[in-house]
Amino acid sequence: MKPNGEDEEAPAGGPWEECFEAAVQLALRAGQIIRKALSEEKRVSTKTSAADLVTETDHLVEGLIISELQKRFPSHRFIAEEAAAAGAKCVLTPSPTWIVDPIDGTCNFVHRFPTVAVSIGFAVNQELEFGVIYHCTEERLYTGRRGQGAFCNGQRLRVSGETDISKALVLTEIGPKRDPATLKLFLSNMERLLHAKAHGVRVIGSSTLALCHLASGAADAYYQFGLHCWDLAAATVIIREAGGIVMDTSGGPLDLMSCRVVAAGTREMATLIAQALQTINYGRDDEK
Amino acid sequence: MKPNGEDEEAPAGGPWEECFEAAVQLALRAGQIIRKALSEEKRVSTKTSAADLVTETDHLVEGLIISELQKRFPSHRFIAEEAAAAGAKCVLTPSPTWIVDPIDGTCNFVHRFPTVAVSIGFAVNQELEFGVIYHCTEERLYTGRRGQGAFCNGQRLRVSGETDISKALVLTEIGPKRDPATLKLFLSNMERLLHAKAHGVRVIGSSTLALCHLASGAADAYYQFGLHCWDLAAATVIIREAGGIVMDTSGGPLDLMSCRVVAAGTREMATLIAQALQTINYGRDDEK
Repeated sequence: MKPNGEDEEAPAGGPWEECFEAAVQLALRAGQIIRKALSEEKRVSTKTSAADLVTETDHLVEGLIISELQKRFPSHRFIAEEAAAAGAKCVLTPSPTWIVDPIDGTCNFVHRFPTVAVSIGFAVNQELEFGVIYHCTEERLYTGRRGQGAFCNGQRLRVSGETDISKALVLTEIGPKRDPATLKLFLSNMERLLHAKAHGVRVIGSSTLALCHLASGAADAYYQFGLHCWDLAAATVIIREAGGIVMDTSGGPLDLMSCRVVAAGTREMATLIAQALQTINYGRDDEK
Repeated sequence: MKPNGEDEEAPAGGPWEECFEAAVQLALRAGQIIRKALSEEKRVSTKTSAADLVTETDHLVEGLIISELQKRFPSHRFIAEEAAAAGAKCVLTPSPTWIVDPIDGTCNFVHRFPTVAVSIGFAVNQELEFGVIYHCTEERLYTGRRGQGAFCNGQRLRVSGETDISKALVLTEIGPKRDPATLKLFLSNMERLLHAKAHGVRVIGSSTLALCHLASGAADAYYQFGLHCWDLAAATVIIREAGGIVMDTSGGPLDLMSCRVVAAGTREMATLIAQALQTINYGRDDEK
């Protein structure tokens, strides 16, 4: 497939059908490897902090996904978690670009806490075309394709229509920085939402799967500082195709590289959450 | 079966075999009802606060479990969540006593957040004999019987052997009280564990299932203020039979009625967590 796909005959599922099918197959294969690894002993090395772990399986799965995609789509570009940790730049150009998190929920994975996903997003002309997320232990495949809806194991996803924080289940994640000032802001944001009488706040250890819960209507809002473009890319398409909103914590449009996000079933809810939050500065993915 | 079972011939699985089998069958039936309800619209009425919801299904499932058990074991006593909310006393006498939470994770249930369980514990002479917990959406049946081990879908459970907080995944729940002073203590406890460099803290919205994760070794510690005996009874047997520790947040022995708990894979870890915590006073289940 050529970079812009213009001189290809578009298959039934749209111009990026072949890419989408490859993503689904690779997510399922990666999920199998991860499930197997969860039943074995693991050697673990630390990344930037004890809370942000990296494992052999992480490298193995990322290697598999990228090498297979490079073989099939040699002109495409890649942004992936482990490559970025090793110093590769995260720049989203107009070229077809795969944005991959081989294991979202690495800390969960290390502890065998069964909330772990593979996330594969795909963008062209800096616009997200599709997202594929696989919940490895529960074997749930979430997909979203621009203009074609979002699904979990074939079942259509719809976000919640809730607009009132006091009726909302809100999801968040702690983020990798654990210095006292960052923790204080993290906890203060949680306090603000609980003071606003959110029904509940959940922290499940996987941004990607939390965002899938939002897409399925099982939660009403999500926010986080300190997540990366590979945590967000696939989930953003899925949420939007499920009728939801993904925006910047400032209330403005989403910036995939800004390491922060608010997502909700409705614009009213997303705006209320954004207004309640204090910013935690994690820099940008494309300036690291 | 007679209250103390002494004049019965003990079946292969011990003197309370018939009760255990009844608990398993009822947990599975209740789980079916809950799964069905999760796919339907729900009417919700508030209990003590918006965060502590009660639903028709909660009442329906508790009614089913209690009425079936009363029919089969007319001399037994019952402690159950919805009955307690309606004013029934929670007193653990030496009589065989069933301790039932029809839906643990009611707030999750209301939002269709798929982390919901049925919990059935059983005590004789004020000692816990067995626990049965059913994760309704993932169809995982956790069981523990005193002296006979703990299992999930037939697979033996073993706790983690971790003794170092800086390598621990810690689970907790927010608790039903949301006044500013209680929230401050809740967040301050979370801050203390994050300062102690816990790998991660998770809040999944079901005490019972969090305790099951601990029993399976997927988490290293759990603590909570504001949970009830019906959240704890079944899980306590399962954790102990998986080799773990369940204690009071003071570091002393567990008091099922004290609305607080620390659990961990090792005594060292439980003690470290207990020492790190500030107490949140929720009163006692048997003084309400």
